[in-house]
Amino acid sequence: MNQDYIKADNWSIIEEGFDAERVKSSESLFSIGNGAMGQRANFEETYTGKTFQGSYIAGVYYPDKTRVGWWKNGYPEYFAKVLNAPNWIGIAVYVNGETLDLNTCKTVSNFRRELNMQEGWYKRSFVTTLANGIVVEVETLRFLSLELDELGAISYSVTAVNSDAEIVFAPYLDSGITNEDSNWDDKFWNTTKVSATENRAFIEAHTMKTKFETCTYMQAFLEYKGNLVSEGLVNQTDTTVSFTFTQKVEAKETVTLTKFGGYTVSRNHRSDKLVAAANSVLDKAVALGFDALLKKQKEAWDAIWHMSDIVIEGDVKAQQGIRFNIFQLNQTYLGTDSRLNIGPKGFTGEKYGGSTYWDTEAYCLPFYMATKDHVVARKLLKYRYNHLEKAIENAQKLGFSNGAALYPMVTMNGEECHNEWEITFEEIHRNGAIAFAIFNYYRYTSDYSYIPEMGLEVLIGISRFWHQRVNFSEEKGKFVMLGVTGPNEYENNVNNNWYTNYIAKWCIEYTLEQLNKVKDGYSDDYGRIIGKTKLTDVECEAWKEVADNLYFPFSEKHQVYLQQDGFLDKELVKVADLPKTARPINQKWSWDRILRSPYIKQADVLQGFYFFEDDFTTESLERHFDFYEPFTVHESSLSPCVHSIQAAKLGRMEQAYRFYLRTSRLDLDDYNKEVEEGLHITSMAGTWMSIVEGFGGMRVLDDKLSFTPQIPKQWKTYSFKVNFRNRILKVTVTQEGATFVLEGGQEGMSIRVNGERKVLKPV
Amino acid sequence: MNQDYIKADNWSIIEEGFDAERVKSSESLFSIGNGAMGQRANFEETYTGKTFQGSYIAGVYYPDKTRVGWWKNGYPEYFAKVLNAPNWIGIAVYVNGETLDLNTCKTVSNFRRELNMQEGWYKRSFVTTLANGIVVEVETLRFLSLELDELGAISYSVTAVNSDAEIVFAPYLDSGITNEDSNWDDKFWNTTKVSATENRAFIEAHTMKTKFETCTYMQAFLEYKGNLVSEGLVNQTDTTVSFTFTQKVEAKETVTLTKFGGYTVSRNHRSDKLVAAANSVLDKAVALGFDALLKKQKEAWDAIWHMSDIVIEGDVKAQQGIRFNIFQLNQTYLGTDSRLNIGPKGFTGEKYGGSTYWDTEAYCLPFYMATKDHVVARKLLKYRYNHLEKAIENAQKLGFSNGAALYPMVTMNGEECHNEWEITFEEIHRNGAIAFAIFNYYRYTSDYSYIPEMGLEVLIGISRFWHQRVNFSEEKGKFVMLGVTGPNEYENNVNNNWYTNYIAKWCIEYTLEQLNKVKDGYSDDYGRIIGKTKLTDVECEAWKEVADNLYFPFSEKHQVYLQQDGFLDKELVKVADLPKTARPINQKWSWDRILRSPYIKQADVLQGFYFFEDDFTTESLERHFDFYEPFTVHESSLSPCVHSIQAAKLGRMEQAYRFYLRTSRLDLDDYNKEVEEGLHITSMAGTWMSIVEGFGGMRVLDDKLSFTPQIPKQWKTYSFKVNFRNRILKVTVTQEGATFVLEGGQEGMSIRVNGERKVLKPV
Repeated sequence: MNQDYIKADNWSIIEEGFDAERVKSSESLFSIGNGAMGQRANFEETYTGKTFQGSYIAGVYYPDKTRVGWWKNGYPEYFAKVLNAPNWIGIAVYVNGETLDLNTCKTVSNFRRELNMQEGWYKRSFVTTLANGIVVEVETLRFLSLELDELGAISYSVTAVNSDAEIVFAPYLDSGITNEDSNWDDKFWNTTKVSATENRAFIEAHTMKTKFETCTYMQAFLEYKGNLVSEGLVNQTDTTVSFTFTQKVEAKETVTLTKFGGYTVSRNHRSDKLVAAANSVLDKAVALGFDALLKKQKEAWDAIWHMSDIVIEGDVKAQQGIRFNIFQLNQTYLGTDSRLNIGPKGFTGEKYGGSTYWDTEAYCLPFYMATKDHVVARKLLKYRYNHLEKAIENAQKLGFSNGAALYPMVTMNGEECHNEWEITFEEIHRNGAIAFAIFNYYRYTSDYSYIPEMGLEVLIGISRFWHQRVNFSEEKGKFVMLGVTGPNEYENNVNNNWYTNYIAKWCIEYTLEQLNKVKDGYSDDYGRIIGKTKLTDVECEAWKEVADNLYFPFSEKHQVYLQQDGFLDKELVKVADLPKTARPINQKWSWDRILRSPYIKQADVLQGFYFFEDDFTTESLERHFDFYEPFTVHESSLSPCVHSIQAAKLGRMEQAYRFYLRTSRLDLDDYNKEVEEGLHITSMAGTWMSIVEGFGGMRVLDDKLSFTPQIPKQWKTYSFKVNFRNRILKVTVTQEGATFVLEGGQEGMSIRVNGERKVLKPV
Repeated sequence: MNQDYIKADNWSIIEEGFDAERVKSSESLFSIGNGAMGQRANFEETYTGKTFQGSYIAGVYYPDKTRVGWWKNGYPEYFAKVLNAPNWIGIAVYVNGETLDLNTCKTVSNFRRELNMQEGWYKRSFVTTLANGIVVEVETLRFLSLELDELGAISYSVTAVNSDAEIVFAPYLDSGITNEDSNWDDKFWNTTKVSATENRAFIEAHTMKTKFETCTYMQAFLEYKGNLVSEGLVNQTDTTVSFTFTQKVEAKETVTLTKFGGYTVSRNHRSDKLVAAANSVLDKAVALGFDALLKKQKEAWDAIWHMSDIVIEGDVKAQQGIRFNIFQLNQTYLGTDSRLNIGPKGFTGEKYGGSTYWDTEAYCLPFYMATKDHVVARKLLKYRYNHLEKAIENAQKLGFSNGAALYPMVTMNGEECHNEWEITFEEIHRNGAIAFAIFNYYRYTSDYSYIPEMGLEVLIGISRFWHQRVNFSEEKGKFVMLGVTGPNEYENNVNNNWYTNYIAKWCIEYTLEQLNKVKDGYSDDYGRIIGKTKLTDVECEAWKEVADNLYFPFSEKHQVYLQQDGFLDKELVKVADLPKTARPINQKWSWDRILRSPYIKQADVLQGFYFFEDDFTTESLERHFDFYEPFTVHESSLSPCVHSIQAAKLGRMEQAYRFYLRTSRLDLDDYNKEVEEGLHITSMAGTWMSIVEGFGGMRVLDDKLSFTPQIPKQWKTYSFKVNFRNRILKVTVTQEGATFVLEGGQEGMSIRVNGERKVLKPV
């Protein structure tokens, strides 16, 4: 953890001073993205120090052949790797013949980075003395356009500080790039053509195996004293192309390179039209110009913030933290493309691979439902519908039949790509989160249409899976679910994980309910679905039999549901009684010791109490919270948010606030000393939930929004907006109370505040 | 399975006819070894077809960096790889300038291999027409000397069949070899010097990291019509050296190359004396000559067979099978070096790595105790004593303390090198087998000295482990052992595996018993051990508390011990009721499905009934056998033997014989289509046990040998010898009855046969 790394600021992420050891971490923190592509904050100019180069195109991946120690039958053959794409940001700079390189220069001063979240740009500036004694000042500003989402723009200025200097700029494209995360050192990219026109350059390359065709392109202008400098030679190799601009710069004068670049991809264009598409983007960019594009960028971010901002007064670090989370979520996914999803590292790193985990449904969906139009959340749901066939195939590979669907633990294209057996094969509760998201989407948006159109088929596949996955225990006289891993990944291959059993039962019951509803209200859809799935009443009866007779481990003594069979056989020493030297246990203890311990990585039983809170009394929640939280080590980035929400519900605001702090600045303060690998994107949605659902107590009850607002004593006020069924509600909470403002519209809206009905008039 | 692959023969393994698809399988089956080194039956001459090259030096390994999909804390950093060593057998042959290569020649006829187990040599012969039309007949005979265990010898004859021919022989050494099993394609060998004298050549090379220094050497003679042909040029590269012999051979005449070669190793010599040591071996070999060495080879094998042979009349295939097993065990380990052990593939392949599993104690020890002098078995025990410090370190890495010892699942030098968490961390019953072997050794040999000298320290380390590994369950009011994998590896991370709990309890009780015995009878040793281990009465009391209060899952309904907690929750469909298409489940089912099924890979509860049979009634054995065997798929090579012994004990000879058949010709008939990877060496000892302990019913009861002889109805007679406390007893069983002959000695010996006391006089 490093609390002084990033300067506190309401709207910007700021680093001051150059530290070569922090370059990789800052490359993560200052990442930029526009939903369609993104990149780490790598330097444009040459840098020979430690760096983790990364530029990513949404949906472009490589199925890397699985590499494991010991093969288990059923492992997926491939792991979808997040791919480092060709570099378009590169600008080699030479000063009197010497390469500008912060790793080899004599001194660096006034080094500063700023990621302006309000306006969506990233700026870096520094003064450096090169080995040849020449001092230059550099300022560079970069953004990935929301207006033209295939385009990025860079303004790179060099000022000769102490003397005249000949400055050469060589903006380039480079497809000779590699991945840090590669199983077999395969070649991921094949470059097919490098070309250049008078002032534009293109590299056409495709990914191996997946054959995503891409065109990486650029155009650059050098300006000195108000005049354009014409470029010199085009330099080409098999995988690079550059232009050379040379300019004698007088002392104190500045020369500025403007570079436009980016990708056009066969996912969005015909393969043979990629260069044409790139030219078209460049035409638009050139016509608008850098400044106008930057202005549009600010406007676009302004629109995003208008809806999704959370304002906290009285705590700059908390303000900065929550905005960083909201900003990164929006950089990662904007809901414009139902083929995309929310990767755990977004566009900030390669780790974990794949783009979709159950994080999307369990953590990210509520954020997108409340801060965007409902079509965005619907796209996330449609994504899973589009993968239903693959989920059925996936289940078939594991021995299931009759249309049973098991959604993958990790995926890019619908196929499973995770390959730890205890997760891939056993962490099947993910199926439940996908069903719950359907319920949650309808509950929040009241848009039922997804269910007859798509969702019911998903629900049927999932229910079929649960029905086949349980078996009847003669011993217990109940159906049991053996050999699973629950949300708490510090347990593997356990029997009757309460959360998994609970969500399985719920899935079946919800599916049966929706079947009836669709039958009654959408008979065409019903006919189509029954025809397609061949679902019979007999099968539904068999599901019901399972749901009605599923086993749930329960302790009479403690009056709590047990996380799994045998939980009480563990040595129940509380986390607080562990020696400090044992923490975090995932670094200090061997895996077997973790597995047989009672320690919980993230909410498991309590995750069930979160999803299905209406099924349990607050007393029961309190009993379970008091039983399980003391054994919870919160070593997953997804853990503190659920606990924060539950603690707030129990009125334990001090505890709720402590949990909130653990999640909101996880990356900014680099708690786990791993931010250089990339950011924890999906858990950022959990931070948003901690405020809105936790402190704000927002719920949907009886088709209406309900709030139980509380505020940490450390804050003066906080406010947020939610889009509820196309009505915008602004909630402001102070130490004195809460106010609710309904923005626009004609009609009033009824909400509940602390259980009391309240009718809001639009303003 | 391929029943016609190997010709039935009482003493030899014979293959007739050349099949390129079988070359790799035959390379395994015709492997030769002498305990100190061994090699696959690779061709001496060039072969460009599919082959798996392997020559192995006992105890020479490489710690290959672990490669896993997802790292788990506590994984061992390295996996000790069985190393393919430099090639000394190579003899390139050219006929009128054309390379002799069975992959490129026009025809091959009369191809025949014979592994003569009685005499310990391997012969191959064939007639081939080369592309140039020349027909040659080749006969080659090879053995690894038992007399000089650093030496191998080859006689390679070529007869010109249809015309005169110029035949060139280029015997060579080659250290430019690689491993099939390599995690990171590391370079395993570094060659430091290639040299040649007038007629000898040497390659000095060391293994990377482990720095085993080796000298691979050769000397060759070519003889034509009774005269030695002088060799031509020496050819050297960085990693090869060869001699060239050229001879015009008349039609129908034969030219014979004799090649001596092998390895001298820094494990046995000073590093700077390896070439000298090689010269010394060659001096001896040359002085004796090929024929005399071969004669000594036959004599040495004759001595081995004299003691260890099992003669079966009336069933040639059974005879061949059991001799193949006995032969391979003796090729692998002869008990001359307590730094060595019995690798699962012996000298026949690289798979699994490491040289020592619990197989040694559980399966191999009885064979070596009964067929060798007791010092051999004692060396196997001493091996574990020598690794005690490493076992303590291994336990420390996993969080244990105070001298607790966890022996590795797989090892070469005492360090754990297995890296599946469910095995490495959880299959801890292996510790019990090591303690049981100490008990078993004393029971069989009456040599108590190992216990005060070494064994007690091992027992204390193991008991300390068990004591720390359990925890007290408030819920059960008993000590429990959570998160283990029992012998049945089709279950992972289970609680209270009955076998593991039982052997843990037994270990503690046995250790306490031996502590008292050593205290009473070996006070010097006792003082030394207590001083070293700092063992206190309080600690012993704590152990006893655990042993007295350990939990054992039991079903009142079925009156059987449960393999683990929750076993009865499974869907108890018997193996016989599974569709054929589901077998073998390890190929047809995904891992999760196997884990949640009731199917048992190898004896688990029944393994406990085998080790501790005196603790249970025959009725109880029968009940447990009838409960568990129907769920057992026997997909481990170690499974059928224990079941064969138990079935024989229950008088179910038909079933016992069926199990016996599954184990005895596993490799010869290539049941699992995997023999090309190497042989299943350790399970071969199980085959021996099936006859001696199963059909013969041999036990040690009250310090005396006891027998309950039975015979499969398919056999006429069978006989075996056992060395019991330096007395040789020959047992012959016919359909009519059994006879017992005590060989040599002065005194009589009392045994029990079917419970009746019988006194044997020496003959």
